[in-house]
Amino acid sequence: MEEQRRRDATDNADRSVAITLPTVPPVDEAAEHDAMDRQPTLTKPPGSLGRLENLAVALAGLSGESRPELAEATVVVAASDHGVVDRGVSAYPQAATRAMLANFLNGGAAINAIADAVGAETLVVDAGIVGEPVAGALDVRIGSGTDDAAAGSAMSRKEALAAIDAGLEIAAADLDDSDIVALGEMGIGNTTIAAALTAALTDASPAEATGHGTGIDDGRLDHKIDVVEEMLRVDGLSPDDRSTDQDPLDILASVGGFEVGVLAGVAIGCAADRTPVVVDGAISGAAALLADAIEPAVRPYLLPSHAGVEPAHAIQLDALDLDPLFEYDLRLGEGTGACLALPIYRSACATLREMATFDDIGLGPDQ
Amino acid sequence: MEEQRRRDATDNADRSVAITLPTVPPVDEAAEHDAMDRQPTLTKPPGSLGRLENLAVALAGLSGESRPELAEATVVVAASDHGVVDRGVSAYPQAATRAMLANFLNGGAAINAIADAVGAETLVVDAGIVGEPVAGALDVRIGSGTDDAAAGSAMSRKEALAAIDAGLEIAAADLDDSDIVALGEMGIGNTTIAAALTAALTDASPAEATGHGTGIDDGRLDHKIDVVEEMLRVDGLSPDDRSTDQDPLDILASVGGFEVGVLAGVAIGCAADRTPVVVDGAISGAAALLADAIEPAVRPYLLPSHAGVEPAHAIQLDALDLDPLFEYDLRLGEGTGACLALPIYRSACATLREMATFDDIGLGPDQ
Repeated sequence: MEEQRRRDATDNADRSVAITLPTVPPVDEAAEHDAMDRQPTLTKPPGSLGRLENLAVALAGLSGESRPELAEATVVVAASDHGVVDRGVSAYPQAATRAMLANFLNGGAAINAIADAVGAETLVVDAGIVGEPVAGALDVRIGSGTDDAAAGSAMSRKEALAAIDAGLEIAAADLDDSDIVALGEMGIGNTTIAAALTAALTDASPAEATGHGTGIDDGRLDHKIDVVEEMLRVDGLSPDDRSTDQDPLDILASVGGFEVGVLAGVAIGCAADRTPVVVDGAISGAAALLADAIEPAVRPYLLPSHAGVEPAHAIQLDALDLDPLFEYDLRLGEGTGACLALPIYRSACATLREMATFDDIGLGPDQ
Repeated sequence: MEEQRRRDATDNADRSVAITLPTVPPVDEAAEHDAMDRQPTLTKPPGSLGRLENLAVALAGLSGESRPELAEATVVVAASDHGVVDRGVSAYPQAATRAMLANFLNGGAAINAIADAVGAETLVVDAGIVGEPVAGALDVRIGSGTDDAAAGSAMSRKEALAAIDAGLEIAAADLDDSDIVALGEMGIGNTTIAAALTAALTDASPAEATGHGTGIDDGRLDHKIDVVEEMLRVDGLSPDDRSTDQDPLDILASVGGFEVGVLAGVAIGCAADRTPVVVDGAISGAAALLADAIEPAVRPYLLPSHAGVEPAHAIQLDALDLDPLFEYDLRLGEGTGACLALPIYRSACATLREMATFDDIGLGPDQ
């Protein structure tokens, strides 16, 4: 099998290849307390907006503004291809990644419709799909698809680092004006990647983390689990085999994929800019797990959206302490579920920011 | 107690006072089937948008358009006062109804912030608060608050009819351009009304249907349950006492309130115009139960939003077969939860309407 690997595994041992991360600030407790103090002064029975009140307070702490506004929202849809699709883990051919990327750019995909409906910009990123760059997508290509992760590493450690760096750069250059960012992705085979990453980064077994993806049958699912187990085994990441302080960059290099690394970088870069990041399904959830493993300070900036169908998603949400806002049996990705959550976060902030107080309307304690 | 009643109970027996209802059309099965047939042609794995796909199909059947658009959304916030507040059932003074109505008109309430955030118009309706009409509100006042429903009828049968008619007229005159309508309300004491209506219109007991409202303590809750029991008893609506074919208009007259009758009329009028109606919390839920009792054809046009805190709400949702979209421990009313659901319904329709098909992008079965 070794000859199938294009990358030199020895460079994965090169610890001089290390990430330089921006500083992720802690939650702004003063802004959070201001928001908390403001809630009971607003013209509603105390606590009557339930979870919305807590969300608004949390967003104050993240943004550092006691009355935050989530005016500009962007969904980053990062796409790439995965060598492991040669193993027959997906219901769709690899060419679908490219076709869907074109569909995103033409405005014909689910994410376009939903992003428009909720008032979010869509940023389409080519993180490394097979073949030529896709015209119109933001080009941060790390390669022309990854290698077969079940035969060795998906990419080199240098490429893993480049993916993270590309995400950091997108956050700094393209998301600077965004008040909230939704994570989205596309890549045939990437629920396999997400399952492997989830098993590698948590206590879950490959069987627990692997699901039907976009629509394989039960027979194919058994095969997919075997592939995920092999992806971990060949890189020493099996549950009984791995070291306790496995480097997250090595895990990304071992398993893939480019879009997951880019999204992890986006999450860290956004957090460094006090921009909250909404996790979508199992693939962006894997990116969130990876970001959290690389830089634990990112954790509070990761916000939940839906509870998805893919089993890895529940494991990720649990590991990240994220309580989903809704459950609609979504299993599409693209950032669709994350975008559906944006009006909830916006509404929570709007009540904190725009509502009159009891004093304003003459019902204060002294009036 | 009888001398406290301003209205003549004998007129409640006058069956010549009957509602003239507009025709509520059945679901358009052709449009529904068109939508259902379209879903698997869209550029996503079949079923991958989960519940959103079902919502879009349902909305096609309701609107009669195979690719519906929910461009114009309105939240109707109907307010009135309730004589039963003299019994000490609320944590707030009756004057808060008027103060909050002014707050709605000044844009300072939670519903203003949330309606703005989700792109809905707000229509504020004075259905009969105590005192003078509130300038700026749509005036459909049935009276200056209802009578104490625990001492007899809250209103006459004629007033109950007038409330329903006012709602029908609002639907025809003010909501004609709306593609979807959210039900909202305000009225100190109206969770007591909602509890009594819910017990009268379902098999639930007053104790099961009565909750803490906007914030009474447990001791006050026991008293509130007693009041609800008395509201039913004085009008022969107690579970063991009532006739099996109790007229819903009589139930409204017995219990109140004006805003609930108006919202029931709005729901029926909207349904007659093929406009779906989003139910908010326990008070609009009571209005939905009432509308359904008056005109069962309205049922499919009633859409869920949140699962609220007030116990009557769960009973209503169950009785109406509505599966909530989310649960955020809301107990404010005003239409806040219903407005939070609008982007979900809009997004569902947007995917059905705007997405490219596999044929469009060259991935059809013949390509």
